[in-house]
Amino acid sequence: MRCNRLRHALLAAFCVASILCRGRDYASYVDPFIGTEGDGNTFPGASMPFGMVKLGPDCGDRGSNPGYRAGATVRGFSHLHVSGTGGGPKYGNILVFPFTGELTVTDYGSGSTAEHAEPGYYRTSLDNGAVAELTCTDHTGAHRYNFTRPGRRGILVDTGSILGENACCGENQVLLGSEVEILSDHEITGQNRVSGGWNTGDAFTVYFYATFSAPATEYGTWKSGRATARSTAEYDSGEPVGAWFGYAEDTDTVEVRVGISFISRGKARQNCMAESAGIPFDVLRAAARGRWNACLGRIDADSTDPAALRRFYTALYHTLLQPVDKTGENSRWVSPEPYYDDFYCLWDTFRTSHPLLTLIAPADEARIVNSLIDIYRHSGYMPDGRSGDSNGRTQGGSNAEMVVADALLKDLPGIDADEALEAMLKDAEVPPGDDERRHGRGGLSDYIRLGYVSTDYERAGTRTLEYAANDWAIAQCAAKAGRHDLAEKYSRRAASWENLWRPVVCDSVCGFIMPRRSDGEWDDSYREPTWDYYTSTPPCRLRLTPPSQLPDSCRRGEPFTPHSHGSWPNFFYETNSWEYSFYVPHDVSRLIEKCGGTDSFVSRLDRFFDSGYFNINNEPGFLIPCLYLWAGRHDRTVERVNRLLTNHFSDGRDGLPGNDDSGAMSAWYVFHNIGFFPNAGQDVYLLTAPRFKRTRIDLGGGRILTVEADNLSPDNIYVESVTIDGKPWHKSWFSHADIARGATIRFRMSPRPGKWERTAEAPPSR
Amino acid sequence: MRCNRLRHALLAAFCVASILCRGRDYASYVDPFIGTEGDGNTFPGASMPFGMVKLGPDCGDRGSNPGYRAGATVRGFSHLHVSGTGGGPKYGNILVFPFTGELTVTDYGSGSTAEHAEPGYYRTSLDNGAVAELTCTDHTGAHRYNFTRPGRRGILVDTGSILGENACCGENQVLLGSEVEILSDHEITGQNRVSGGWNTGDAFTVYFYATFSAPATEYGTWKSGRATARSTAEYDSGEPVGAWFGYAEDTDTVEVRVGISFISRGKARQNCMAESAGIPFDVLRAAARGRWNACLGRIDADSTDPAALRRFYTALYHTLLQPVDKTGENSRWVSPEPYYDDFYCLWDTFRTSHPLLTLIAPADEARIVNSLIDIYRHSGYMPDGRSGDSNGRTQGGSNAEMVVADALLKDLPGIDADEALEAMLKDAEVPPGDDERRHGRGGLSDYIRLGYVSTDYERAGTRTLEYAANDWAIAQCAAKAGRHDLAEKYSRRAASWENLWRPVVCDSVCGFIMPRRSDGEWDDSYREPTWDYYTSTPPCRLRLTPPSQLPDSCRRGEPFTPHSHGSWPNFFYETNSWEYSFYVPHDVSRLIEKCGGTDSFVSRLDRFFDSGYFNINNEPGFLIPCLYLWAGRHDRTVERVNRLLTNHFSDGRDGLPGNDDSGAMSAWYVFHNIGFFPNAGQDVYLLTAPRFKRTRIDLGGGRILTVEADNLSPDNIYVESVTIDGKPWHKSWFSHADIARGATIRFRMSPRPGKWERTAEAPPSR
Repeated sequence: MRCNRLRHALLAAFCVASILCRGRDYASYVDPFIGTEGDGNTFPGASMPFGMVKLGPDCGDRGSNPGYRAGATVRGFSHLHVSGTGGGPKYGNILVFPFTGELTVTDYGSGSTAEHAEPGYYRTSLDNGAVAELTCTDHTGAHRYNFTRPGRRGILVDTGSILGENACCGENQVLLGSEVEILSDHEITGQNRVSGGWNTGDAFTVYFYATFSAPATEYGTWKSGRATARSTAEYDSGEPVGAWFGYAEDTDTVEVRVGISFISRGKARQNCMAESAGIPFDVLRAAARGRWNACLGRIDADSTDPAALRRFYTALYHTLLQPVDKTGENSRWVSPEPYYDDFYCLWDTFRTSHPLLTLIAPADEARIVNSLIDIYRHSGYMPDGRSGDSNGRTQGGSNAEMVVADALLKDLPGIDADEALEAMLKDAEVPPGDDERRHGRGGLSDYIRLGYVSTDYERAGTRTLEYAANDWAIAQCAAKAGRHDLAEKYSRRAASWENLWRPVVCDSVCGFIMPRRSDGEWDDSYREPTWDYYTSTPPCRLRLTPPSQLPDSCRRGEPFTPHSHGSWPNFFYETNSWEYSFYVPHDVSRLIEKCGGTDSFVSRLDRFFDSGYFNINNEPGFLIPCLYLWAGRHDRTVERVNRLLTNHFSDGRDGLPGNDDSGAMSAWYVFHNIGFFPNAGQDVYLLTAPRFKRTRIDLGGGRILTVEADNLSPDNIYVESVTIDGKPWHKSWFSHADIARGATIRFRMSPRPGKWERTAEAPPSR
Repeated sequence: MRCNRLRHALLAAFCVASILCRGRDYASYVDPFIGTEGDGNTFPGASMPFGMVKLGPDCGDRGSNPGYRAGATVRGFSHLHVSGTGGGPKYGNILVFPFTGELTVTDYGSGSTAEHAEPGYYRTSLDNGAVAELTCTDHTGAHRYNFTRPGRRGILVDTGSILGENACCGENQVLLGSEVEILSDHEITGQNRVSGGWNTGDAFTVYFYATFSAPATEYGTWKSGRATARSTAEYDSGEPVGAWFGYAEDTDTVEVRVGISFISRGKARQNCMAESAGIPFDVLRAAARGRWNACLGRIDADSTDPAALRRFYTALYHTLLQPVDKTGENSRWVSPEPYYDDFYCLWDTFRTSHPLLTLIAPADEARIVNSLIDIYRHSGYMPDGRSGDSNGRTQGGSNAEMVVADALLKDLPGIDADEALEAMLKDAEVPPGDDERRHGRGGLSDYIRLGYVSTDYERAGTRTLEYAANDWAIAQCAAKAGRHDLAEKYSRRAASWENLWRPVVCDSVCGFIMPRRSDGEWDDSYREPTWDYYTSTPPCRLRLTPPSQLPDSCRRGEPFTPHSHGSWPNFFYETNSWEYSFYVPHDVSRLIEKCGGTDSFVSRLDRFFDSGYFNINNEPGFLIPCLYLWAGRHDRTVERVNRLLTNHFSDGRDGLPGNDDSGAMSAWYVFHNIGFFPNAGQDVYLLTAPRFKRTRIDLGGGRILTVEADNLSPDNIYVESVTIDGKPWHKSWFSHADIARGATIRFRMSPRPGKWERTAEAPPSR
C-alpha cells in the first residue's frame, strides 16, 4: 500500500511536470464531437490511445453504435464502446448513472446540456442536477459526479444494460446474464455476459470492480426491475441486475473508479488498484491528456487555420482509438504475444489506418500484426472483423493479408515473416466452412478451382476482386522471403479479377465486373436475394429465400446493379459494379488496358466522378481518386481529392461523410492532408498534394519525415515539382525505404497543372 | 433462511423415509471401482445420475483420465471429471486437499488405504491421518474430513490444479488463469479458466464457492507456489493460485460444501446454498443413493449370482454418468431448451448408451436430443464430441444423426422433427471447413461429389462408411416426416459405402474397404502419415509429414492395413479394414451379397472371430457379433456374445476390456445381458439371448417390458423359441412399437442350437 501511494505521488508529480514542460498541446485541437452526428458514429467519451476502456454516455434507446446520441436522454455512462462503426451495436457494458430524487431501476435517465469533450475527458450537466465528469486509464473508468441540487441522490450500477438489444438482422447483442455484489459501503463488483452484436460474436464476460469515494448511507440491488433495498447481491440467473448506493444530502461529490477486466473480478480490482484508485481525478485527466499529446504529436502539422487543425487532429485522434490493446486481458488463451481486439473491421482499416500506424507508430503496428498472427494461431484464422474476443465477420476478402503485407514489405521489426506467411496461406488455402461470414475466405473452393467466386456464393464480386488483391499481398511477401514458387503461384492468382471482367458496354463505358456461374457462363439471370436472407438469424439456415426482381438495366444487358449498395447476400458489398470495377489496386496498368487504354480510362474515371457515382461514404472507393496517377494525370487526382476534402469533411458534429469505421475514414483524411496516400498492402506511397505548409512526422528512433509545401495557397492546389532530400523526384510515388531513415519531401505548388503532373513516372503495377 | 431450514428438514425426513420404505437397494450391487484399472478409465468418485459435479480423487501426476489412479498418491479431490474416456484428460477443476503437518503448496499429497465407493459416495483413509469422505448433489460437492492424528491440520483449495497439463499430441489441458478469495473464516470463492484437453476445446471458466463447517484459525493464499500467510486473495494473472485454512488441534472434523458453476461466482454460491449448505453429510449421501436407486431400478434383474448383479448394475451405473445435465449452467447462450455437455463422444455412445436411455429413460433422452439440436442452433453443428462447452472432435461420421434418428424413429415425445431434420441436414450438406476434426463432416465435398471420401482427406475409410450409415438415419427420418424426395436422396447416398468396396482377395476372403483417390483410382500407393502429423498442435498446419512405409501385405495387393489401429490421420479410426468392412449397419443384406452370399459371409465372420481380429476394446465392432442374424445364424451370435461376455468382462477393477467410453462399453454389456441389442439409429432391436431368468424394464408411464428366460442355465445358451406377449415370435428382431406399450418377451433356452435359430426372419436392411 505504501508502495502504491508513492507511485501515485510520483505519477501526480510527473503529470504536473508534463503540463509545465509540455510543448504543443495537440489535444486542444481535438474535438471528439466531430462525427457524432450524421453518419460518423464516432465515440465522444474518454479513452486512451488504443485504450480498452472507452467510458462514455449511452443514450436514448441504447440503439446507437457508439452509445452516444446527440440530444437524447442520457441513460448513464458505460465502459466499453467502439467508434465509427455501423450495423448492430457492440458493448455498452457496466453502466453507471447518478440519480437524484426517486430511484427507478427500469427507466432512469436524464436530459443533458453543456457537454464538453477532449481527449481522455468528457463532461455533461444532467438535467437532474448532477454534473458528470469522466476520464479513464487503459483499463479503468474514473467518474466524478457533482450533485448540484438538494434532495435525494445516489449512484446506480446497471450490469444488465447493454447496447443494441433490439438491433435488427441478427446483429443484436444478447445479455446472457449479469451479477452484482455490494462488498462494502464503498465497493461494488460483478460482471455481465454478452453475445452477438454486429460480428455475431460468441459469449464474453466483462467483470468490474468499483470503488466509491464516499460511504453510502443506503443501498440495494435489483433483478429484472424488482428492486430490493438493503440487499447486497444478485446472482446470475440470466436476468438483468444492478445495484445502487444512496448518499447523505451533504455529500455533494462522489467519485467512482471502475476497474474493468475480461478475465475476472480480481483482475478488474487489480486494474482499478494499479491504475486509478486513490489517484485524484484531475491527475488522471492530465495523465490521459499527456498520453494523447505524446501520440498526436507524432505528426506536427503547421497551419494558421484553427478549423484545419481541428479537422486534422480530430481525424488523427479517431484513428488512434482502435484496435484496442487488451494484452493481459485475453480470456481465450495465454500467449507471450500482444493481444488486440476490436478490429472493426480490417476491410475498412487496412486501406488507411494501418498504413498510417506503420508510419507514425511502427512499434504499435508491429504489436498489432503480431496479435493478428497469434489470433490465427489460436482461433484458426486471422480476423477480418473481431470484437468481444470473437472473429467475425468478413465483408469481402481476407484483408489481414493487406495489413501483414504492409508491415512486412515496409520492414517493420519484430514480425516473424514465416509465421506471417503461414497465417496468410491459411486464409488463401483452407476454406473456413460452416458460416463463411466468420473469417477466412468464403467461396474459396470456387476461387481456387474456377479462378473466381461463382454466383453459388454470396458476395461473389467483392470476394473475387479482394481475393486477387490479397493474393498479390501474399505473392510479394513470399517473394521477399525467397519463396519464389509460392510468389509465382500467388502472382498468377492475383490476376483472377480478370475472370469476372465482362466486356459489356454501359453508359458508353466498356467492361464491368459481373456475376458468373460456376459452369463458366455469365449469369444473366442472376437475381439478388431478398433482404429476408440477410435477416435470418445465424447460424444461417439452408433455405434460400426467393430472389427479388432485377433492375431493368440488367435485363438490357447493362452492367449488373450499377448503383446498388449491397450487403451480405449481394454480389457486391457496400457498393456497385461501377465502383468495384476499379478495385484492382495491384494491377492498375492491366485494368487500364482492359478499359481500352489511358484515354478511355481517364474518361471513365471522369465519367465516374462527374456522374456522382463515386461514394466517399464507404471504403471500396478510397483509392479511386488516386488511380489517375497510373494514367499520368496527377492533376486530376489533386482536383478530385481537393474537392472531396473540401466538400465532405468539416469540423462540425456532422463533419464526416460516412461511418468513421474505427478511424479508417479519418485516416484517409489525414493522409490526404499530409500530401501522400498509401497503396495499402504494397510498399508504395502515392504522392498527392499537401494541405499544410509543413508537416513533421515522427517515424520513431529520432527519424523525421518532413513534408513541405512551397507556394501553398487555397488556389495553388497543383504540384509544380517535387524533391526528396533536395533531389528532384520524377515519380508520382515513393517507397518506404525512400523515407524510412527520415527525409524531407518538398512540393512546389502551383495554381495550374504543369509538366511534372503529366510526366511523373506512374506507380508500379503487378 | 427459515425457508431453507424447513426445506432441509423436509429433505432429511424424505431421505429417512426413503431408506425405511425402500424396496430393492440396487446401489448395493454397484462397485464404482470396476473398470478403474486396466483400460476402463472409469471414474470411482461421487456423482449424481447425469450429474454435473463429479467429485473424486486426482492422483499421481494428474495424468489419468478420470483423475483416479489406483495406488498412486492422492493429490486431493476435485469437482469435475469424465468417466471411461481416452486421449488427453479433461477437467480436474477446483481441488480440495486435507493437509496435516507442514503445509506445502507445490507438492502436497498422500498415499491412501481403505478405499470405499458406492453410487454418490467415496471414502479413503489418507496416510497423512485424514479420512476423506465425499458425496455430492447435481451442482455441489460435499466433503467430510476427519483428522485422526494430533498436530497441525488444514484444508487447501487449489484452483490452479487441473488434469492432463502434460498430455501429449496437442490434447493437453492448459490453465489460462485462476483466482481465489477468502471471504471469511469459513468461506472461499474463486475460479479457474481452462482450455484444451482431448477435444481441444475453447476456454471455459469454472467458478466455485466453498463454505467450511469450522472457523479457520489460520489462513493464506499462494500464487505459482509462493505462499503468503494471512493473504486473502490472489487475482488472475495467468498463474496457478490457491488458498488454505488451518484449524485448531481440537477441530477433528471439517466439512466443506463446494458449489460449482460454469456461469459465475454468485451462481456457484447459489448452487451451494440451494443444494447442500447446511444439510448434514449423511443426508446428502442418502439422497444421492436414493436418486441412484430410482435410476438403477429402471431395470430390475433377477439373479442369484451376486457377481452377475455386480457386473450388471455397475455397467448400468456407468451408462448413467454421462452426458451431464448442465441446464442453467450454459455459459455460451440462453435458451429454453435443456443443456447437456460431455458427449464424449457420440461415436462411442450412439451404438448402445443412447438406445438404452431411449428405452429406460425416455424423458431424459428426449432432453438430451433437444439439447443436441439446440447446440446445432447456437454452435452451427450438433457435436460428435463435446466437453467444456465446446464441440470437438469427430472420430468418423456425424453420429448425432444416429442418436436423433434413434429417438425420432422410436417416437420419443417432445422433439421437433423438422428442427431435428434441419440439424441433421446441416451435417450432411455444409462442410465444416477449417479444422475438420471439430464437428460436421470432414471431406464432405468429396463425399457429395464422388460418393466417397478420397485419400485427399484423413480417415477417408471410416468417414465414408459412417456417412453412409448417417445418411440412412436421415433417409428414415425424412421418410417418417413425409419428405419423400429427401428420403430418396439420402437412401441413395446410404449406398456410398459400396464405392470403397474393392473386390480384392486376402486370406481367401473377398472384398475389402480400401483407399481410393479423388481421380477414382484405387490408391495402391497410399501411405499412412507418420505420427508426427497427429502430434502437430492444432490448428493443424498445412504441411503434411512424410509418409511411413506400407506393410508388406499391402504391396502384395492384400487388403489395406488389415491389423492396424488408426487414429486421426489414418484411413480407419481405431480399427482396420477387416473390421470396418463389416460396418454397414443399415445395409447388411447388400454386404452379404458383396461378400459372395450367406455361406461366404458366415465363414468370413467365423474367420474374423476365430483369427482374433475382432476387437471388443473399441466400438466399431460392437454390432459385428449380431451380423450372423442376417445370415440366419442366431446360434453363432449367441456363441460369440456368450464368449465375449464371459471372457472380457468381470467384476474386478480391471473388469472392462477397454475404455468404458462414457458408458458405451457398459451399455453393450447391459443389452447383451438382457437379451437383445439395438441396431442404433434404426427402429430395430436384435434378439440375442438373456443372461437373467427375468428382467423387468420400466419404460416409464407404468409400462413394463419383461424379458424372461425359461430353462436358463450356464449351458443353455441357445434359444429354442421366443414369444412376445404369449404369441410365437418368428423373427430374430423386433421394433420399438412391439414393446413400447409394455410387453413380455419370453425366451425358451436350450443347450443346443435349434430350428428357431436357423429359421427366424432376418432383421431388415436398406
